[in-house]
Amino acid sequence: MAKPKAKLKRKISKLKKKIKGLKAELNASTSIPAVSPLAPPSGFPVLPEISGVTFAAGAAGVKYQGRDDVMLAHIAAGSAVAGVFTRSATRSGPVLDCQTKLAALQKTDTVADAMGIVVNSGNSNAFTGKFGDASVEFVSASAAKVLKTSPENILTSSTGVIGEPLPHDKIIAVLDDLSANLSSANGAAAAGAIMTTDTFAKGATTSVEIDGKTVQIAGFAKGSGMIAPDMATMLVYIFTDAAVTSAALQHMISAENQRTFNAITVDSDTSTSDTLLAFATGAAGNTQIIGADSVDGQVLATALHDVMRELAHLVVKDGEGATKFIEVKVTGAVSDDSAQTVALAIANSPLVKTAAAGEDPNWGRVVMAVGKSGEPADRDKISIHFGDILVAENGWVSPTYTEDAGVAYMKNQDLTISTDLGMGKGTAQVWTCDLTHGYITINADYRS
Amino acid sequence: MAKPKAKLKRKISKLKKKIKGLKAELNASTSIPAVSPLAPPSGFPVLPEISGVTFAAGAAGVKYQGRDDVMLAHIAAGSAVAGVFTRSATRSGPVLDCQTKLAALQKTDTVADAMGIVVNSGNSNAFTGKFGDASVEFVSASAAKVLKTSPENILTSSTGVIGEPLPHDKIIAVLDDLSANLSSANGAAAAGAIMTTDTFAKGATTSVEIDGKTVQIAGFAKGSGMIAPDMATMLVYIFTDAAVTSAALQHMISAENQRTFNAITVDSDTSTSDTLLAFATGAAGNTQIIGADSVDGQVLATALHDVMRELAHLVVKDGEGATKFIEVKVTGAVSDDSAQTVALAIANSPLVKTAAAGEDPNWGRVVMAVGKSGEPADRDKISIHFGDILVAENGWVSPTYTEDAGVAYMKNQDLTISTDLGMGKGTAQVWTCDLTHGYITINADYRS
Repeated sequence: MAKPKAKLKRKISKLKKKIKGLKAELNASTSIPAVSPLAPPSGFPVLPEISGVTFAAGAAGVKYQGRDDVMLAHIAAGSAVAGVFTRSATRSGPVLDCQTKLAALQKTDTVADAMGIVVNSGNSNAFTGKFGDASVEFVSASAAKVLKTSPENILTSSTGVIGEPLPHDKIIAVLDDLSANLSSANGAAAAGAIMTTDTFAKGATTSVEIDGKTVQIAGFAKGSGMIAPDMATMLVYIFTDAAVTSAALQHMISAENQRTFNAITVDSDTSTSDTLLAFATGAAGNTQIIGADSVDGQVLATALHDVMRELAHLVVKDGEGATKFIEVKVTGAVSDDSAQTVALAIANSPLVKTAAAGEDPNWGRVVMAVGKSGEPADRDKISIHFGDILVAENGWVSPTYTEDAGVAYMKNQDLTISTDLGMGKGTAQVWTCDLTHGYITINADYRS
Repeated sequence: MAKPKAKLKRKISKLKKKIKGLKAELNASTSIPAVSPLAPPSGFPVLPEISGVTFAAGAAGVKYQGRDDVMLAHIAAGSAVAGVFTRSATRSGPVLDCQTKLAALQKTDTVADAMGIVVNSGNSNAFTGKFGDASVEFVSASAAKVLKTSPENILTSSTGVIGEPLPHDKIIAVLDDLSANLSSANGAAAAGAIMTTDTFAKGATTSVEIDGKTVQIAGFAKGSGMIAPDMATMLVYIFTDAAVTSAALQHMISAENQRTFNAITVDSDTSTSDTLLAFATGAAGNTQIIGADSVDGQVLATALHDVMRELAHLVVKDGEGATKFIEVKVTGAVSDDSAQTVALAIANSPLVKTAAAGEDPNWGRVVMAVGKSGEPADRDKISIHFGDILVAENGWVSPTYTEDAGVAYMKNQDLTISTDLGMGKGTAQVWTCDLTHGYITINADYRS
C-alpha cells in the first residue's frame, strides 16, 4: 500500500529528530568541551603589574602553529627567588637544571643580578638524554645574552610532548624580539603562551598590607591533569614586590605548596616536569622579611597561600574531562599526615571519582577508599558527610540519611566529601575532580 | 516544489541507515559487552572432583532474582585450611569472622571436624555495623546445623552492595535444600552462584604427582575489578586432595598470593571483602607434607601457584571495560620489592592504561610512571620494551624504534610492557587491563 506523501514527510521529520537526538547523545558521551565547564565565568583575572617584573610572549612554532608558545620574563636585580619541583625520579633536564641553579642563587639573601625565565610549550624536553641537557644550556646562554645577565640566572621550563628533541633553535630565534617587548603588563599573554591542553589560562592575584606598604602578589599556572596527554607538567610562576630573603621565601613556598599544589590530584599521575618558581623584587619597600615565622612573614605566607590555592583549584577545574570540583576533607585522623594519606586515597579512587561523575551518592566507595589507604581507621568510628548531609556513622548508614537527599546533593557542580575517622586530631583537605568519559576520550582516543 | 514519492522513500531509507550508523557508534562508545572480550574462548574448565569436597548452589533472592546467589560447600573432617584476606581497615564482618575462626582452626595440623563454606552474592555485608556481625553468626549457626559441625568451622563470605543489611533469613532458608544437594560435581554451579558483575565464571585446575600419588587442585574465583560497582570483593576458593598441614598450606598460599592475586590490579581500588580460602582434604593419600620447603611441598606450591595465577589472570580479563590484557614486567630494580612498586605504578597509571586502550605506544607515560613510583631509578639507565620491540634506552627513544612498529604492536589483545631499570637484580611481574569508556560507563553511568 502506497503511503501518502504527507505521511512520508512526517516520517522524514521524525527520523531527522531522532538523528538529532542520537547525535546529541553521542556527543555527550564522548566529546570534549572546548573550555572546561568548571572554568571561572569571570575569565582570566586582571593581574596587577609587579614592579621589577616584565614579560613577553611570542610564537616560535615549537610544535603548535598560530599561537604563542614561548614566554620570557625578566626579574630585576636584587630579587629573591624560591622554587619547588617534581620529585619524580625521571624528571626532565630543565627541572634538574633549575634545581642546580636555584641552590646557587639562594646562597645570598637576594640575587645581585637580574634573573630570567624562559618557558616553552609543545615539547617538555623530558627523557631526551644528554641532548636535552645541552638544549637547556643553549637556551639559557641565549636568554642571558638578551637579558644582559649570566646563564646561571636563567631558569627554564618546557612542557609538552615527552621524548622528542627540543627544537631549541626555534626558541632562541625569538628571544631578541621577546626581550624588545618586555612589559609588566604582559602577564596574561605569558600565561597563555605556556598552555598545552589547558582549556583556559589560569591566573590569581591578591594584595596585603605589610609594614605599612601595599604588597602585590600575582601568579599564573598551567596544568590540566597532573600530566596531560603526552603533555607533561604543571608549571606555576608567582611574582611579588615584597621584600623578603630567598631563604624566607623558600620556607613559605615549601610549606604552602604542601597545602595547595601537593593537595590536588586529577589522576594520581605525576609529571616529570612539575615546577613552581616564585620571585620577590622588594619594590614594595617593606622592611625585608628574613623570617617566615615573623608577623610580616606570616602575613606574606598567608597571601602566597591564597594565590597558590586559587591556582591549584584552577588546575583541578581544568582537569581532563572534569565536570565536578570535589573538596575532600578528612578530620579525626591520628595525625595530619595520616589525614592527608586518607584524603588522597579518597580523591584518587577511580570508584569515588566515577561515582561523582554519575552523581551517585555512593558512600560505600568512600568507606572502601578509607580502608585501602593503609592508615589507622575503625569501621565503627567513621562518619561521612556529603556537604552538610550526614550519610554514615557508627559503622553504618545514618538513620537520618535519605537516598533522595544524597542524590539531590550530588547534582551540585561543587561537592564536598567530609570523613571523620574519630581516631585523633589530624586533618587534611585536598581537591580533585570527577572521572568521566571525557578523560578517556582525551587520553585514549587522542593519538599524539 | 513537491518531491516525488520515490525520492521521499529513498530519503527515508538513507535516514534510517544514518540512524543505524549512529546507534552503532553510540553503542561502541558506551556499551558494556555482555561477556568480556578477554574471556577464555574455551569457557569454564571441567573441574575434577576433589574427594572430600562437595558443593551446592541455590537461589535465595538476596538481591538478584532468577539466578543462583548462594553456594554451600562441605569439606570432610581431617582437612587442612588456609586463607588470606584484604588488609583494608574497613573490612567486612564476614572477613573479620573468617580471620578469627581461621586462627583457631589452624592450631592443629588438620581440622578434626568437617568445615563448611557459605557464600552469598548480592550483598557484601560490609559497613553494616554490629547488625552485620550478628548476620554472620546467624548464618554460621544454621550452616553448622545442616552440615552437622560446629559454627566455629563455618567460614562465610558475602559479596555485593555495601552498607545494606544482609537478609540472612533468605540465606538460612535455603541451607536445608542446599545440604540435601551437596555433590562433588557441583563446582561449576558454585562458581556461578558467587558472581556479581562478573561477565563469566572463573575456574582453574591442575594435577601433579606427589609421593607417587596424583594430587588434584581445583579452584574458582569471582571478581571484576578489585571492587565492582557497589559490589565489593574478589573471592577465591581452592580445593585439593593433597595431604598437607594447615601451617604448610598457609605458608604456600601466603607466598603464592604475593605473586598472583597481589600482583594484579584493575583500578587500584581495594575491596573491603577480598577473601581467599584453601582447603586440603588429604584424600590423595600422599605422605602428609609438613614443610612448604620440602621437595613435595615445592611441587604442591608450584601447582597451587599455577591455579592461583590462572584465576588471577581471569579476574583481570573480566576487569570492568577491559579490552586489553597487559603484563607489566620490571627488571633491574634495586630489589624485588622495589620492582613490584614500580610495576604497580605502571599498571595503576590511568595514563598508561588509557594509552593501551587507545593502542598508543606511548612510552613517555611508562617513563612518567617509573618516575612517580618513588623507587630508585636513573633516567639514563632505563630501557623499555613493548613486546620484543626495544622502545627506549639510554634516556631516550631507541634509534632502532619506529612508531609504525609500536603502533602495530599495540593492536594486540595481549600486551607486555617490560622496563629494565639497570640498577640491580630486583624483578617483578604484574598484570592489569586497559582503562576504557566501558569502565566509566559501568561505574559512573550505572546507578545502584
